[in-house]
Amino acid sequence: MVPAKVAAVFTKNTFKAAPLLINEERVQRGIAQAIITNSGCANAATGKAGYRDALMISGALSRELKIKDELVLVGSTGVIGKRLPIKKIESGIGKLVKGLNETGIEDAESAMMTTDKYPKVAIRKGVIGAKDVTICGIAKGAGMIEPNMATLLTYVMTDAFIDSKALNTVFHQAINATFNAISVDGCMSTNDMAIILANGLAGNNPLEKVQARLQRFRDMLTDVLMELCQAVVKDGEGATKFISIMVKGAKTKSDARCAAYSIANSNLVKTAFFGEDPNWGRVIAALGASGIYIEKEKINLSIGNIVVYKHNSPVEININKLKEVFQTDRIDIEVDLGAGDKSYYVYTSDLSYDYVKINAEYST
Amino acid sequence: MVPAKVAAVFTKNTFKAAPLLINEERVQRGIAQAIITNSGCANAATGKAGYRDALMISGALSRELKIKDELVLVGSTGVIGKRLPIKKIESGIGKLVKGLNETGIEDAESAMMTTDKYPKVAIRKGVIGAKDVTICGIAKGAGMIEPNMATLLTYVMTDAFIDSKALNTVFHQAINATFNAISVDGCMSTNDMAIILANGLAGNNPLEKVQARLQRFRDMLTDVLMELCQAVVKDGEGATKFISIMVKGAKTKSDARCAAYSIANSNLVKTAFFGEDPNWGRVIAALGASGIYIEKEKINLSIGNIVVYKHNSPVEININKLKEVFQTDRIDIEVDLGAGDKSYYVYTSDLSYDYVKINAEYST
Repeated sequence: MVPAKVAAVFTKNTFKAAPLLINEERVQRGIAQAIITNSGCANAATGKAGYRDALMISGALSRELKIKDELVLVGSTGVIGKRLPIKKIESGIGKLVKGLNETGIEDAESAMMTTDKYPKVAIRKGVIGAKDVTICGIAKGAGMIEPNMATLLTYVMTDAFIDSKALNTVFHQAINATFNAISVDGCMSTNDMAIILANGLAGNNPLEKVQARLQRFRDMLTDVLMELCQAVVKDGEGATKFISIMVKGAKTKSDARCAAYSIANSNLVKTAFFGEDPNWGRVIAALGASGIYIEKEKINLSIGNIVVYKHNSPVEININKLKEVFQTDRIDIEVDLGAGDKSYYVYTSDLSYDYVKINAEYST
Repeated sequence: MVPAKVAAVFTKNTFKAAPLLINEERVQRGIAQAIITNSGCANAATGKAGYRDALMISGALSRELKIKDELVLVGSTGVIGKRLPIKKIESGIGKLVKGLNETGIEDAESAMMTTDKYPKVAIRKGVIGAKDVTICGIAKGAGMIEPNMATLLTYVMTDAFIDSKALNTVFHQAINATFNAISVDGCMSTNDMAIILANGLAGNNPLEKVQARLQRFRDMLTDVLMELCQAVVKDGEGATKFISIMVKGAKTKSDARCAAYSIANSNLVKTAFFGEDPNWGRVIAALGASGIYIEKEKINLSIGNIVVYKHNSPVEININKLKEVFQTDRIDIEVDLGAGDKSYYVYTSDLSYDYVKINAEYST
């Protein structure tokens, strides 16, 4: 094991969990070597005591691994406001380290699941800079998923040799194109975090600045993150549908984004999809509630390629054909605002009984 | 029946329903005499044809009542994007007018219910300007309830004699203090509307400008609207709890409002309340997601008078006492931001299986 270049993205929630406060500082130095994560307890809203708990975990791991403490990053997921069972964790770390092995990635992913139904691992291999390069990512997260970051925890590892600044840039770009464009319930977590570690062992010609090979790396990385973020939406708490919302023809990207999220986060839209009820009027209502300026005559709404609304009027459609669209697992909504050339897409899920069930009984 | 002074508040949704477009114009003139309302179909997102439908209804009613067409206001509630069965409505208006009687207010209220479980009527009587004055309001609305307006339809009638400008001012003030401070699902409807008619038959000394008697009228009106808006939240789709969220100690009212709504509209907060799960950490997470600047050391969170978080740390509490709070029908959340003297409250409900059920099967 060797130290790796590191880049990371953290939730913008004011009440960032204790481990994130530690990581934010450590990631600044650009180097890390280990990530340790627990599920069941978020170690958020736990004050200074919680901060000390996270430091203790990091310290215990660094001693076992015989690496510098500041090379350890910490992640937590679970109930907010509860203290960690710190003694139990510390006493288990020795065993944890003994169990480390090269094929343990799925074990790691499974261990950090909370309400996830299945583990999420994505791998891409490619030749970059004359060498075989691998990117492997794991993600955990089924609820509290929303932009300004994304799933609770996403860890990506690669053997690519890459400049620190370039790593930071491409990671942010890839996260923005993937995890920052999904929403399950519009709730922003205290613990959301995405980390990439690049140890350079592939020995490729270095990836830096604007190069074709850096772009290839970014494409591979985006692929990995896209696979993970779609898996996260599909495994959204109680999700029965995967809904893609594309808003195009916007004057600004911010308008497109605002409209897309207004639709994605509407409980009335989400329940209609769960009920397979072709109630497209709710999409119009959610669009109209977004607050962006809309020229009503110019907009065009289609669901699964069926145009349901244009020229500020409903289109006469075969309702049974639309019902069929609502009965499929994946539903594509497209809004053309007819006002410009900017666009934004959001992936989301429906709102089901199970979402309520899972979240009504979470902490007890 | 005589014409009345009128004031109104309409949804800010871009896709306002056809009847609202008509009313907006008519209310400008300051006088109205009749309101006709249907449920089952919103006549929203129905284009020019829908606009003509609303005009036809208004025309038919004005002919039956032998009043000027522009004195009629129209309301609709129900599925968005569907056309009204206009022939059926027109042919029924004669019968409707024949059935008018002085004690018909509950019939009117019941007739406009959609997913409401019970009718909502509130009445206040008082001596103002040396005469007996009555204010009576009815409200319909159980889902799609959110600020920037409120319930789908709220109609208030009074016999007070009041200046048009004063009526407009106090009605907006009273609506802002009541209906604009509730939320069931964060969805802004295309049809939300509140109207007040004041026919002056009480013969009181006129209410105008800033007077003690105008203030008394406003207080009575606020009482009526408060009773109605609380009834609307209690009857929120699938609601099992009434949740009051008070954010105080804010630097600006806008900060307080933003924080209160971030909590009120969090599905994770709402499901925890439904499950009677004392998971107060979700309130902290929702507060932290609000985007306002927060000095974490200064905030104070209490639920049902139990302080659960202060000095940026959880308070050691008797969890069973907190559970008891969660088991009651009404739960009070109070956040003190410790940053100023502005405050804002929001009333909301929990998120239950029934909310999903009602909305998954709405249009079909």
